[in-house]
Amino acid sequence: MAESFPMNGGDGTYSYTKNSQYQKQATDFAKGTIQEAILEKLDTENLLSVSNTFRIVDFGCSVGPNTFITVQNMIQAVESKCSLQGLDPGAIDFQVFFNDHTANDFNTLFASFPPDRRYYAAAAPGSFHGRLFPRASISLAHSSYALHWLSRVPEGVCDRKLAAWNEGRVHYTGSSEDVVRAYGDQFEKDMGVFMKARADEIVEGGLMVLIMPGIPDGASHSQLLFGVLFNFLGSSLLDLASEGIIDKAKIDEFNLPVYAPSVGEMRKLIEKNGCFSIERIELTNPRSKVDEPIDVHTLIMHLRAGMEAVFTKHFGDAVVEKMFHKTLAKSGEISEFLKSTYPKSTQLFLVLKRK
Amino acid sequence: MAESFPMNGGDGTYSYTKNSQYQKQATDFAKGTIQEAILEKLDTENLLSVSNTFRIVDFGCSVGPNTFITVQNMIQAVESKCSLQGLDPGAIDFQVFFNDHTANDFNTLFASFPPDRRYYAAAAPGSFHGRLFPRASISLAHSSYALHWLSRVPEGVCDRKLAAWNEGRVHYTGSSEDVVRAYGDQFEKDMGVFMKARADEIVEGGLMVLIMPGIPDGASHSQLLFGVLFNFLGSSLLDLASEGIIDKAKIDEFNLPVYAPSVGEMRKLIEKNGCFSIERIELTNPRSKVDEPIDVHTLIMHLRAGMEAVFTKHFGDAVVEKMFHKTLAKSGEISEFLKSTYPKSTQLFLVLKRK
Repeated sequence: MAESFPMNGGDGTYSYTKNSQYQKQATDFAKGTIQEAILEKLDTENLLSVSNTFRIVDFGCSVGPNTFITVQNMIQAVESKCSLQGLDPGAIDFQVFFNDHTANDFNTLFASFPPDRRYYAAAAPGSFHGRLFPRASISLAHSSYALHWLSRVPEGVCDRKLAAWNEGRVHYTGSSEDVVRAYGDQFEKDMGVFMKARADEIVEGGLMVLIMPGIPDGASHSQLLFGVLFNFLGSSLLDLASEGIIDKAKIDEFNLPVYAPSVGEMRKLIEKNGCFSIERIELTNPRSKVDEPIDVHTLIMHLRAGMEAVFTKHFGDAVVEKMFHKTLAKSGEISEFLKSTYPKSTQLFLVLKRK
Repeated sequence: MAESFPMNGGDGTYSYTKNSQYQKQATDFAKGTIQEAILEKLDTENLLSVSNTFRIVDFGCSVGPNTFITVQNMIQAVESKCSLQGLDPGAIDFQVFFNDHTANDFNTLFASFPPDRRYYAAAAPGSFHGRLFPRASISLAHSSYALHWLSRVPEGVCDRKLAAWNEGRVHYTGSSEDVVRAYGDQFEKDMGVFMKARADEIVEGGLMVLIMPGIPDGASHSQLLFGVLFNFLGSSLLDLASEGIIDKAKIDEFNLPVYAPSVGEMRKLIEKNGCFSIERIELTNPRSKVDEPIDVHTLIMHLRAGMEAVFTKHFGDAVVEKMFHKTLAKSGEISEFLKSTYPKSTQLFLVLKRK
């Protein structure tokens, strides 16, 4: 069973709901691109020839509101495509499945369902590293900022006897080749399972849109935005160790199960699965249309909403509170660092079609 | 939008999870009858002729564990019927939708999904007094102890200017004909909406099994087990009013939105809808195979798990705590009263088939 670390639930100060504006920017940016992909690549006539039900999934939906915006956008695009193909969009029954780990705060998600939604809403709780739906039952699948979560911490990175031991670090950014390879291998396994499950579930001609952090081919893994932030979290933990608040061995035993592939890696994994054609694959810059620069304080709050659970499970509340406090104090330093090293286009955008 | 008063969530002392053994007895009792109905009435060959997916819903699933037992039982029966009809049950993809109000504690439900389940689990949050699924997408529907909840308090029963004013009472048990009629009218409206929605959603030949409290034709509404308990809750509230803890007017403004129909009433409403044939309709005694008598203390705890929310919304936590405390102190009196008046068969069992 895959490990599960949900986004922070509820709607408090550290909740995902209150700290996901950057994900929303990414969602907004992807809006046009997703519409375009649906208009160009989705054959609604064929998909609706057997039944008037059109089933959509958002894998890794978290607790909203971004998932609702994305779903609404996709439905509008499907309706437009229907009209273009001479079908009556009003005759379609849309059923939307919101997927995330069982431990996700679905109660909060359900409480914020848009009242004027034009679809039958359902949830499919469980890990997407495995089957979730009946065969050939899904026409359109989407996942944004979820696939970078590995199903487990890569083998060996916490074992001091092995070459992949990731001493004093919480992530592979800036680590040895052995550590990076251990992460890459785990991602390959996870994507293999994910693609096999989706190939079973998505109907022939159905589309899958994937959005996740990625790096350019040939770029160093050290250039990953989140990796840089993870390193600062790691150094805050080392500060706490040197202050005697935690044992350094506790840091050695911890690694974030998060990986961002390159374009080439992702292409290879999809081709290995063999059930999907790649309709589009590219790195984009979701902030290209946003004027103000990234605010590091906000970014760290986002990171906290998304990542606190995994840290807390290992280090406990009090240490995690101190770690984020220390990291926030380094905002200026982080900001300078990001300006010099962070490549702009790190959002991997894929459109796949089930053969 | 229908009013929503979920069962008590979580797994604490007053939770539904810990206080639903009597519902489980009802579930156990219904087990054989449901299996029989599926074996006799369900044509799996016809239902699975288009697709290998078989979709099941439990309307008003609450937070478990009863819903999981029922679902497992229904799937086993469908598999048996498949085998009888020469189909391979292993080739079927079962998808099960757990339905309840949006405010139901789905997080608790999801956390207790059986790990070895043989179906794809999904939730469809929302009121069943309205559409929840695409047209003709459901093959088997079930609802146990949920349909007696009205979508709202009947019109007029809280209005001191009207004949249906239900002064000093929290329920129609023992009230005037006008009050009983107001409740009956609301139930008729709600069932109309429920049946219309289900007629849209259930595929031709699909079955719907309904289990709910009912009364024999010609019996007095005062003989309803729950009604008797409600009256004791009401009298405890009047005690609190006479002690000056609450205002009596506060009681006049409150009515439980719960109704138990007679067999004849239910038959009439199903025939009025016209989309379903009645394959079976009867009153049963779910405790006929249970040796020990009903324990009134346990019964009141059950009532609290299921009904606390609706009282609390109106009276607040402190008053509700006192009301249940006072009612528990009357356990002996309630027990004597039930022995003399309570008819044994008050579980309405229906099997309907979509024409």
